[in-house]
Amino acid sequence: MKIYEERIAPNARRVRMFMAEKGCLDDVEWVQLDLKSGENITPEFKRKNPLAKVPVLELDDGTCVSESVAICRYFEALHPESSLMGEEPLEQAQIEMWQRRCEIYFMNLVGMGFQHTSGYFADRMTPVKEWGEICVKSAAKFLKLLEARLAESEFVAGEKFSIADITALVTIDFAKVIRLRLDDSMPNINRWYAQMNERPSAQA
Amino acid sequence: MKIYEERIAPNARRVRMFMAEKGCLDDVEWVQLDLKSGENITPEFKRKNPLAKVPVLELDDGTCVSESVAICRYFEALHPESSLMGEEPLEQAQIEMWQRRCEIYFMNLVGMGFQHTSGYFADRMTPVKEWGEICVKSAAKFLKLLEARLAESEFVAGEKFSIADITALVTIDFAKVIRLRLDDSMPNINRWYAQMNERPSAQA
Repeated sequence: MKIYEERIAPNARRVRMFMAEKGCLDDVEWVQLDLKSGENITPEFKRKNPLAKVPVLELDDGTCVSESVAICRYFEALHPESSLMGEEPLEQAQIEMWQRRCEIYFMNLVGMGFQHTSGYFADRMTPVKEWGEICVKSAAKFLKLLEARLAESEFVAGEKFSIADITALVTIDFAKVIRLRLDDSMPNINRWYAQMNERPSAQA
Repeated sequence: MKIYEERIAPNARRVRMFMAEKGCLDDVEWVQLDLKSGENITPEFKRKNPLAKVPVLELDDGTCVSESVAICRYFEALHPESSLMGEEPLEQAQIEMWQRRCEIYFMNLVGMGFQHTSGYFADRMTPVKEWGEICVKSAAKFLKLLEARLAESEFVAGEKFSIADITALVTIDFAKVIRLRLDDSMPNINRWYAQMNERPSAQA
């Protein structure tokens, strides 16, 4: 099977880090696309994902799965040992909650903040600067919530490493594009961030 | 246990419909909040969900789970029979993919389109009309993708009813607030929509 991605894209890193944690990075062939030049918006690629986003997992029979977390869920279900999405009902729910918080109120805002303030994809979307600036400010607010959370919890979703940590880590690193960086007012995030970077999967 | 919600909110309807399908609507006490008057942004409610969103599930020991799909996942894990999130790995992945497509490229766009063009929550956010109009147009485009999908598939995520159908149905009904309605150019959506409305859960 293959995964189509662009290495520098934050969603691609989420999937790679997830698969590194699962020990199945080498189960797939990694195919690089150049998004800036539009390799993801060709008719051929849109047959794999009509929404033209990466990453896309293509199985050997040609079946395609897009959306990063859907790809992660496939490998979680194939390899349920050392779960990254939870086992007991409440644990599953709490991981889903924090994973979604990290996506909706952080990763998506950093992404929109970047696209709408920089005009990086202005050839295929209309950047709205005012909206981008609101997103940048809102993303910064999420770090306060995360700091409070990591004051009471070793990992983002509780006492175990999970997909929520992956989304938070990837987004913090990506947030440099909107000049949002960790600082000394966030001791708990800094403690967690150092721990995360000790995991070999962080370099996947 | 309790669920705090506002009946008219589309995310609240998603959770109710999911629970009706699972047969566990009566397992919780439903507590109504008035979002427009700000009952969700009080310090008391923010202790249940610091992000001030509904619905929120509160267990008898006070543990709170927010984010609609996290609440759904809790009940899916408690009652795995008649699964709405899939069983086999590929089925789980395909449901997650379509569920996320319906959320990211449809439900979220309808929500932002509504909030940014109407100014409904202008007391607590800055509406950006230009961005709202882009969201409204993009949401309309998703119906073309959904029409093509339902030409090849009985349900949104495949041959079984799933949480992706719930998100699509709830969003289509909610989309009236941005004047987006089904029409005769969408025979497959219309066929599916009629089927969906025959399910008792659609009225939950």
